[in-house]
Amino acid sequence: MNMQTLIKPLIQKNTARIVLVILDGVGGLPGASGKTELEAATTPNLDMLAGESACGLHIPVAHGITPGSGPGHLGVFGYDPLESQIGRGILEALGLGLEVGRTDVAVRCNYATIRDGLITDRRAGRIPTELSGKLTGKLQENIKRIDDVDIIFAPGMEHRFAVLMRFPDDLRSDAAMINDTDPQKEGKSPLPPAPLSKNAERVSMIAEKLISMAHEILKDEEKANFILTRGFSGLPDIPSFHDAFGLKALAIATYPMYRGLARLVGMDTPALEGGVEDEISFLKQKYNEYDFFFLHVKKVDSYGEDGNFDGKAARISEFDKLLPQILELKPDVLLITGDHSTPSVMKGHSWHPVPVLLKSPYVLGGICNAFSERECVKGELGILPALNLMPLALAHAGRLKKFGA
Amino acid sequence: MNMQTLIKPLIQKNTARIVLVILDGVGGLPGASGKTELEAATTPNLDMLAGESACGLHIPVAHGITPGSGPGHLGVFGYDPLESQIGRGILEALGLGLEVGRTDVAVRCNYATIRDGLITDRRAGRIPTELSGKLTGKLQENIKRIDDVDIIFAPGMEHRFAVLMRFPDDLRSDAAMINDTDPQKEGKSPLPPAPLSKNAERVSMIAEKLISMAHEILKDEEKANFILTRGFSGLPDIPSFHDAFGLKALAIATYPMYRGLARLVGMDTPALEGGVEDEISFLKQKYNEYDFFFLHVKKVDSYGEDGNFDGKAARISEFDKLLPQILELKPDVLLITGDHSTPSVMKGHSWHPVPVLLKSPYVLGGICNAFSERECVKGELGILPALNLMPLALAHAGRLKKFGA
Repeated sequence: MNMQTLIKPLIQKNTARIVLVILDGVGGLPGASGKTELEAATTPNLDMLAGESACGLHIPVAHGITPGSGPGHLGVFGYDPLESQIGRGILEALGLGLEVGRTDVAVRCNYATIRDGLITDRRAGRIPTELSGKLTGKLQENIKRIDDVDIIFAPGMEHRFAVLMRFPDDLRSDAAMINDTDPQKEGKSPLPPAPLSKNAERVSMIAEKLISMAHEILKDEEKANFILTRGFSGLPDIPSFHDAFGLKALAIATYPMYRGLARLVGMDTPALEGGVEDEISFLKQKYNEYDFFFLHVKKVDSYGEDGNFDGKAARISEFDKLLPQILELKPDVLLITGDHSTPSVMKGHSWHPVPVLLKSPYVLGGICNAFSERECVKGELGILPALNLMPLALAHAGRLKKFGA
Repeated sequence: MNMQTLIKPLIQKNTARIVLVILDGVGGLPGASGKTELEAATTPNLDMLAGESACGLHIPVAHGITPGSGPGHLGVFGYDPLESQIGRGILEALGLGLEVGRTDVAVRCNYATIRDGLITDRRAGRIPTELSGKLTGKLQENIKRIDDVDIIFAPGMEHRFAVLMRFPDDLRSDAAMINDTDPQKEGKSPLPPAPLSKNAERVSMIAEKLISMAHEILKDEEKANFILTRGFSGLPDIPSFHDAFGLKALAIATYPMYRGLARLVGMDTPALEGGVEDEISFLKQKYNEYDFFFLHVKKVDSYGEDGNFDGKAARISEFDKLLPQILELKPDVLLITGDHSTPSVMKGHSWHPVPVLLKSPYVLGGICNAFSERECVKGELGILPALNLMPLALAHAGRLKKFGA
């Protein structure tokens, strides 16, 4: 029986509030000093909290599997990332503020530079967001519809944007199985958007026309004279966060991608700018209006991806200084973890289990001396699938009834 | 592949004996002193045993799920509590000594007080067992059959009793899907026993007649003038303990509910009165007649449910004093655990993993300094599903062959 099916009849409502902090990519590995980023960071508050909390490590998807941001977040949100695979195109479109509907196929796009049929720059020299926005406006002006399909563009940062293809009728579940056209290397030709299933032929045809129409419009641009498409995807069929867990949820995230992910599961996702301090102010401001808060801290991951060990540790230390502001709210359940590990020494996401800390009056505590990978291994939560964090949060919040008499 | 399917072809018989002690609700949480009930109890024998045993914590059903007594025991007995859901009516009927058959629907009943159609006391003032027994006898005398269905009553403690409806033919698996008629609050009307599935209409009709006939018979009683029905259920389709594990098993339990549960999986369940000392005497007496012994210690849970921290710790200390008598038997495998946690601070069952200790010559040992939640976290068994305890017990007893050549 899957987890959501099991807990659905057990859910009961109360006034308990759950705060989930995702320190993006927080898990790490030892650097030159032998310490991990969490161990090297100055974290008196996280360490004190770990001492009185239930700690452990979660496995985002499965042993050895390195998750992207989508599966990483979905798992922690309580959706089996293997059953609820969400296309990157959908994530991008949601993140850029598009309302994605049932008959839509979303695509992540890059401006690129092409010469004599070969890609010379996959990111069109990372053209400024302003120019990119103008070009996307021009594309939208000239491409509103292809055959019976509405085309909706959303400008993004630098060379990035997204496209929605709105079909007039429902599509088969495998209709968006189209390969990426980005060959992932300069000096190669873009790939055609080929159908990877029989039912994908219609989407493939529209995509091919879109790419060639866009090239025609952009051909005189110095840099952004072509578009590369990735992550073709339709909306997955998953229950909303409220339906699944009985929680009214607010996402507090400054990066569109993570708001998009939260919106996908039906959290409220107001646009927000600034840093972690602004996110926490917003949390305080909205604290009486929701049952569940997802607060996303992006920069920890960014520095990890850049291989900047000290920078990642510094972002963790910064968060630690702000943590008392969250504790002042006295959430009934406070869950602090990451969506995946991003060890600086690997300059990218990894499969390593992610430290997790659950604060509630109903824990053993007294086991871990710090919030770190090595201390969390000793913890009372053990090493558990990310998927099981939500039922634990609900249980500690008194929001799950007994199973069986 | 489910666990029972996996081990079935591997089972081999020998003379090794397995003793399973279930300290009901043994798992706890820190009280005012910062210690859990197990940590506060005086347990020199359990602690010594933990030092030389394989220890860990089991998860009765799933992360965050608080089990009732049924799923809690079934999991430890090696039956997936998600696949083998057993109705409370069945448990109650078995516990009261009724032989439950394939065409039976069992119901848990309460005497209640009703005035002008509203329930004024859901438990009829907890009338004495003697009066309750008399009334149940009167009901049985007057209600032997409704339409083509035999009605069998079983008196219980205080206001409780059970009813079996014996249908002349097999019922569909969802035939007993009837809601409880107890509205769970005084001042409300009893609910009708409505069918929750199409196939439940027949049982619903009989139940409705039963309730109204009983009211007619009881209407002049001062307190017990009505019956409330709960936990309508048919027999689940599960293999016997002997078929599943090749063990001739004896249940040693003074509370009917737990004998009922053991009988459900086909253990022998002779009636027994007294305390833990009497249970252990009975174990000694029967030790040469069985392969497997389930010894149930109820009071640990009862004090936990009452929020009596010291009382729960005292019951654990009491068991510890008797433990050497079990050790004298030198069981090949001794498994000591609980069916779920009942932290006194929560005054009820909880989802927390349950300490478990497995004594056998074939363990690492030397890891844990005491039998407690926090010490068991370090143990060689880790945190594992309750369902996996039976294969471990069988393996340590030399009762499982190699898998694959």
